[in-house]
Amino acid sequence: MGTTLVANGPAADTAPEPKYWQLRTVLVRALDTEFHAGEVLPNERDLSARFGVARATLRQALDQLELEGRLVRRRGIGTLVAAPRMGVPVVESTDHRFGTGRDSWRIVEAGFAPAPAAVAAALGVEADAPVHTVRRLRMMQGQAIGTEILYVPEATAPHVPGFLADSSRARSVLRTLQRLELDGESRAVELGVAEEEQARLLERPPGIPVLVVTARYRAEGRVAAVGVSTYRADTCRLTFGESGLVEVAPVVAAAPAEVRAAS
Amino acid sequence: MGTTLVANGPAADTAPEPKYWQLRTVLVRALDTEFHAGEVLPNERDLSARFGVARATLRQALDQLELEGRLVRRRGIGTLVAAPRMGVPVVESTDHRFGTGRDSWRIVEAGFAPAPAAVAAALGVEADAPVHTVRRLRMMQGQAIGTEILYVPEATAPHVPGFLADSSRARSVLRTLQRLELDGESRAVELGVAEEEQARLLERPPGIPVLVVTARYRAEGRVAAVGVSTYRADTCRLTFGESGLVEVAPVVAAAPAEVRAAS
Repeated sequence: MGTTLVANGPAADTAPEPKYWQLRTVLVRALDTEFHAGEVLPNERDLSARFGVARATLRQALDQLELEGRLVRRRGIGTLVAAPRMGVPVVESTDHRFGTGRDSWRIVEAGFAPAPAAVAAALGVEADAPVHTVRRLRMMQGQAIGTEILYVPEATAPHVPGFLADSSRARSVLRTLQRLELDGESRAVELGVAEEEQARLLERPPGIPVLVVTARYRAEGRVAAVGVSTYRADTCRLTFGESGLVEVAPVVAAAPAEVRAAS
Repeated sequence: MGTTLVANGPAADTAPEPKYWQLRTVLVRALDTEFHAGEVLPNERDLSARFGVARATLRQALDQLELEGRLVRRRGIGTLVAAPRMGVPVVESTDHRFGTGRDSWRIVEAGFAPAPAAVAAALGVEADAPVHTVRRLRMMQGQAIGTEILYVPEATAPHVPGFLADSSRARSVLRTLQRLELDGESRAVELGVAEEEQARLLERPPGIPVLVVTARYRAEGRVAAVGVSTYRADTCRLTFGESGLVEVAPVVAAAPAEVRAAS
């Protein structure tokens, strides 16, 4: 038996919940039931009166919901209910893996320079050996939703010269990757924050939460490329596997409470 | 051609970086070069003197790094450099999918109640039809790193009666799932926050960032189960595909700057 039964889980942390968090929970329910995407919320004065909280508490709760991607603030308009997150397929079919035939990637720049030490190690190249790099921007519904940098060692693209201009290099490297027969690929997803460069490309302030996807592509028994992508965590839901199948995420917040209440 | 070349990406947002964010960048470099995991940082007074910033700015930067999982605060000890995130395999081999032969899952409770509306829709059952639920806790290195709730319709587990006690129900439902011949599975990963119940199980305060994984399992041409898992975003890196292959994520922060400088 690999499992054991724990009656009530580990001892509960009994620190009282902060006020803004209680308000957030109330607001989440209101967003789920009373409002629809794109709707403008009442102003802060009215909201704080309605919920009987101080403006500072209200703002903290609204900040939190903005961070979670439930609300969007627009200067001159106010606070809007955000659209549901976009489902972004992360593992693409072989044909589209490196951007062929799609208009959803834009090349931003390319280069030929040493990779960060850990990437070099993963690629099996010397720390100071230059590798091809291609930085791309992923577009969806007219928005920049993610950035990606591909690291491709010379061994993978031996016919791409080191002196090429950005645009030619990017096209040559991507064409080479598209033709690769991959043995396998693996990915890791974790939470990160947008650094300056990524934030600039995403047209958001630095520090916004992003989902960082690190991909390794294997061909001919070695790592042929490493890709590091960052997706806006407020607007993206990354999907793996059969596309269109996973559409239940927005209920996540409500699920545990309902189940407990009914069981 | 599916790609276009954008010289410098979209227009940069020229808002100045907040001071704490600049400090965070400096601290990240210091953590990468001067400190090792488990080491206790100098106290706040010394740190603010060293970096020439106000205590409030320092605290904001430390808060940010704690949120990112780079630092851990322990009462009576101080601020420690966090261990690297744990790689958590999300797609498990068929044998281990629902926890057989592993000691990494603990059953917390089980029930028989209507699922949240979106889950019911995904499962193809009526909104008020009860489904089996199993809540589990995922353990790694002695820590609770994630929670999961499985929703299993009666059609998938027709021989599990509705009146069973928690522990028997959980075992019966899991055994049924383990025997299923799956046609496919798909997942979505997105950023969420730990609600009260999840936070309690993870022994963390509500509101900490979590990676929410929604999984759909298909068998006999329909959705046989839906699982919603939440993993601590500060300590977990979710891995997909060949295990052990993806180990380059911690460099992500440094990568773009180095590439730009050298290209």
